[in-house]
Amino acid sequence: MSNTIQQNLELLKQLNTNFYNRDFLLSWEQTIDEIKAVTLVADLFKDLHKAGVSFKSFDTGLAISMFRDKSTRTRFSFASAVNALGLGLSELDEEKSQIAHGETVRETANMISFLAETIGIRDDMFLGEGNKYMREVGAAVQEGFEKGVLHRRPSIVNLQCDIDHPTQVLADLMQLKNVFGSLENLRGKKIAMTWAYSPSYGKPLSVPQGIIGLMSRFGMNVSLAYPQGYELIPEVVELAKKQSTTNGGKFEVVGSMEDAFTNADIVYPKSWAPYHVMQRRTELLNKNDKTGLIELEKECLTNNANHKNWECDEPKMRLTAKGEALYMHCLPADISGVSCAQGEVSKNVFEKYRLATYTEAGYKPFIIAAIIFLTRMSNPYEKIQQIINRNTNRIM
Amino acid sequence: MSNTIQQNLELLKQLNTNFYNRDFLLSWEQTIDEIKAVTLVADLFKDLHKAGVSFKSFDTGLAISMFRDKSTRTRFSFASAVNALGLGLSELDEEKSQIAHGETVRETANMISFLAETIGIRDDMFLGEGNKYMREVGAAVQEGFEKGVLHRRPSIVNLQCDIDHPTQVLADLMQLKNVFGSLENLRGKKIAMTWAYSPSYGKPLSVPQGIIGLMSRFGMNVSLAYPQGYELIPEVVELAKKQSTTNGGKFEVVGSMEDAFTNADIVYPKSWAPYHVMQRRTELLNKNDKTGLIELEKECLTNNANHKNWECDEPKMRLTAKGEALYMHCLPADISGVSCAQGEVSKNVFEKYRLATYTEAGYKPFIIAAIIFLTRMSNPYEKIQQIINRNTNRIM
Amino acid sequence: MSNTIQQNLELLKQLNTNFYNRDFLLSWEQTIDEIKAVTLVADLFKDLHKAGVSFKSFDTGLAISMFRDKSTRTRFSFASAVNALGLGLSELDEEKSQIAHGETVRETANMISFLAETIGIRDDMFLGEGNKYMREVGAAVQEGFEKGVLHRRPSIVNLQCDIDHPTQVLADLMQLKNVFGSLENLRGKKIAMTWAYSPSYGKPLSVPQGIIGLMSRFGMNVSLAYPQGYELIPEVVELAKKQSTTNGGKFEVVGSMEDAFTNADIVYPKSWAPYHVMQRRTELLNKNDKTGLIELEKECLTNNANHKNWECDEPKMRLTAKGEALYMHCLPADISGVSCAQGEVSKNVFEKYRLATYTEAGYKPFIIAAIIFLTRMSNPYEKIQQIINRNTNRIM
Repeated sequence: MSNTIQQNLELLKQLNTNFYNRDFLLSWEQTIDEIKAVTLVADLFKDLHKAGVSFKSFDTGLAISMFRDKSTRTRFSFASAVNALGLGLSELDEEKSQIAHGETVRETANMISFLAETIGIRDDMFLGEGNKYMREVGAAVQEGFEKGVLHRRPSIVNLQCDIDHPTQVLADLMQLKNVFGSLENLRGKKIAMTWAYSPSYGKPLSVPQGIIGLMSRFGMNVSLAYPQGYELIPEVVELAKKQSTTNGGKFEVVGSMEDAFTNADIVYPKSWAPYHVMQRRTELLNKNDKTGLIELEKECLTNNANHKNWECDEPKMRLTAKGEALYMHCLPADISGVSCAQGEVSKNVFEKYRLATYTEAGYKPFIIAAIIFLTRMSNPYEKIQQIINRNTNRIM
Repeated sequence: MSNTIQQNLELLKQLNTNFYNRDFLLSWEQTIDEIKAVTLVADLFKDLHKAGVSFKSFDTGLAISMFRDKSTRTRFSFASAVNALGLGLSELDEEKSQIAHGETVRETANMISFLAETIGIRDDMFLGEGNKYMREVGAAVQEGFEKGVLHRRPSIVNLQCDIDHPTQVLADLMQLKNVFGSLENLRGKKIAMTWAYSPSYGKPLSVPQGIIGLMSRFGMNVSLAYPQGYELIPEVVELAKKQSTTNGGKFEVVGSMEDAFTNADIVYPKSWAPYHVMQRRTELLNKNDKTGLIELEKECLTNNANHKNWECDEPKMRLTAKGEALYMHCLPADISGVSCAQGEVSKNVFEKYRLATYTEAGYKPFIIAAIIFLTRMSNPYEKIQQIINRNTNRIM
Repeated sequence: MSNTIQQNLELLKQLNTNFYNRDFLLSWEQTIDEIKAVTLVADLFKDLHKAGVSFKSFDTGLAISMFRDKSTRTRFSFASAVNALGLGLSELDEEKSQIAHGETVRETANMISFLAETIGIRDDMFLGEGNKYMREVGAAVQEGFEKGVLHRRPSIVNLQCDIDHPTQVLADLMQLKNVFGSLENLRGKKIAMTWAYSPSYGKPLSVPQGIIGLMSRFGMNVSLAYPQGYELIPEVVELAKKQSTTNGGKFEVVGSMEDAFTNADIVYPKSWAPYHVMQRRTELLNKNDKTGLIELEKECLTNNANHKNWECDEPKMRLTAKGEALYMHCLPADISGVSCAQGEVSKNVFEKYRLATYTEAGYKPFIIAAIIFLTRMSNPYEKIQQIINRNTNRIM
């Protein structure tokens, strides 16, 4: 077993965390110690997997997923994580366009949870709805557990909502930790979270909001850039500002990709739909106003087209620190001349960082496994020590 | 390990059962000892799960499910049960509206069964078809096993058919056993199985038929109530009558919810479509007569609307024994003012018993696990003793 | 443990194979020793399963499947195989009609593979595309593995492509091995791989091509028969001819089912769409030319209808060796008077061999398990010896 594994375990022991039987819904609701614990356990699981050692932790038990929007990457990350932990996966396939509330949610949450350990939910389509829905499910299983309906209180894991995408941005954080050597080394580094042009419409706000909501806690200089009219949810920007101040970092909002990129150590150019558009869209979806939705899409694509110069290309990359900033993306990126005529990133820039973005994505299954593990185990440190001691080969 | 677990195991030992390599298709085809055995094993598994002890019984092996109608609750109950037993789940996703017979069924049944232990089937849409289909599948795997095509003869488990819903009504029976203290205590208790108004149409007959077909075997006073024209399958009603007589209970058919509720210890108000309507519907579906189906639906909804007073409300509940009858439902219920304007049960009555209905549903995964276990093990008593002795934690 | 198991293991030890971390895409890319190894391991796994002994080989890990065409048999065979090996199954559900290439494939292949051991792919709709796609996925995970993105290099298993259907024809080979006693006994046997009439259209070429590509390596006399205009891919026919010569067999193309059946020991009558039709169909599908596709289908069905006499019936079977040739089919067959008015095989002939075709299909899960096992284990002989020695009951 490598030294790193034992070292990470010792670091984990020193942290003060409170995950057991709780949900993981917004990264900023977790303490810094808890964020660190997730990255440490993810690192431990990744190293164990690489070394061929099983970290199976359950003999039987279900993990439930609800994907209320299409997903390949997160779906497979969740499937990988729960399999590695020894859980069986059951997907709840709802009507995707339907916003269910009240008794239906309360009842369904209990009906699927009799033998469940965790419920992963993706619900990012409706502003003001996704995260709220997750809390409804959490409250329902909490009631079920307290009233003796459920033997166990499954934990809810946010697999992307209208506000945050914590498993993605924690994977991004691990990429930064790995590239820059440690979380401490991120202090003073400039990260440019910028809007980018895309020929498609309605991309969620969860990644940019998740990035500024997480990276502002590590003393980084966060530069948020977007064209006029492409605002994020104001409360999240306000939170990121405050966190920056508290943690000795900086936070700015600028109006051009060039400004944000200048001297940046990390760039994260990614398209999103403006906050107020997502609000209007939610209203139209709730009314099932198809004409209105088509008009809104048309209007937005026209607006987007005014900002085609928001492309991460080589000239803009040359503005970054030593011209060598780390490019990040949650994938799939809209790559000019590859997946679309013109998009978020030029072909050459993407190709240079292509494998780096794969590596970035590769942390996600381990992040999800870490979150599930930490929310299920009353004594995670001892359990991981047991996993290391038993040293079971994953392959016979 | 709790005393109850060892006591239930001793009770199991005394029963005379014959499950091995057989199917579980109609509750009334099982002896009383077999019904008791299912509830005992379900109780054992539930207590083991609550105590954190694994009852995994298979190292590998498949459980197949075929859902020929939508399902959330039963689907997750089956998924939970097979996972807890250590089996992998594979769902056969057929064209849902298609009635397959003959060579297709015979062949498919064998093709999916080479490494399978059990096949759970839901097929409740077509009167005269669902249970027959299950028997065709059973005969096909029996032939495959006898002729050496299959190493094992998977057992067929009825997850709801046109006639019975045995896993549901056995879960209901466990709820009664738990609320009233024992199966013996059910003797002389009055259960009102009554039709109730619903704004929807075409609900299966399997639950009311399953309830009268099972509860009439425990010396209960079964009161079946429905508006004129809402008959169940006559043969099942005849059977329930006979069983009541044989087992020292009573059986009556009455024409109002009030009559059935009077002095009832248990009420089960639930909508269903009349037997003759389901017959006509099956014919129309077979002919793919869409106009006919729309007309039939319209006619039925009009008929239903004449019986909106068939709602389980507080005044009717006051007619029951001490005004405190146990309310039961297989969920989801049509709750007036919650899931519909007017439905099967008033908001207040449902809310009073809401958690009780969740608990009722919570027996189903364990009932299904018990049935699978009993139909696969040649010596279930010894196997459960082994499970108790090995005392493996479900969580590492 | 039976003698056969230990004997097969000894035979395996003597073979010179090179499977580890490689893909299994075309049977003729494998050496004869490798083909033999697959059948031996499949036999071993089948005998272990029959004896109730688990051959679980992975504690955790994922197997991914991509079905770009409908499938029941192969889907369940793959599900059965991966479950028996201890892997969890995750299905990638793509838009079925879409041909993805380039960055999308490269990226998706890595995104699903972080904890994967194997990827089974069915892609048989587009001539010139299916096998190519598998190679793209293979190259992508190879790059990911070499560049440190993936800890493990998952193996790609061809579950049917435009050229070959190796898991099917290897199951067919096992059926022959079993019926004729050994692979050596196949020398000099005549196999008639013939087109047959079907009222449907567009059936893939992979089975007939796979059969002539595999059976021509065992010294058999391969007789390929089809009506004028129903050619297979010329390169595959050329390859089969050469292999026949090299291996001391014969190869002929004839123009009638009767000619092929005469003195045949084995007959495999099965419909397919002509090579040039599949080419035109691929072009039309690529252009999304719906009118063109409808016209092509019409034209082809008219052509098919000119050859209704290409039915495997009793008079034709009497032409075979002693009138008792082994009838084979990959299922489902178009059976005259059963699944269609007139089809590939008469009711009586099919019924006589029905259970034999089930047995034939029953080898497929074990073939797939063998291929996955061999491509994942650096020392398969030692691993199987371990499995035999540990002698774990599959059922507790």
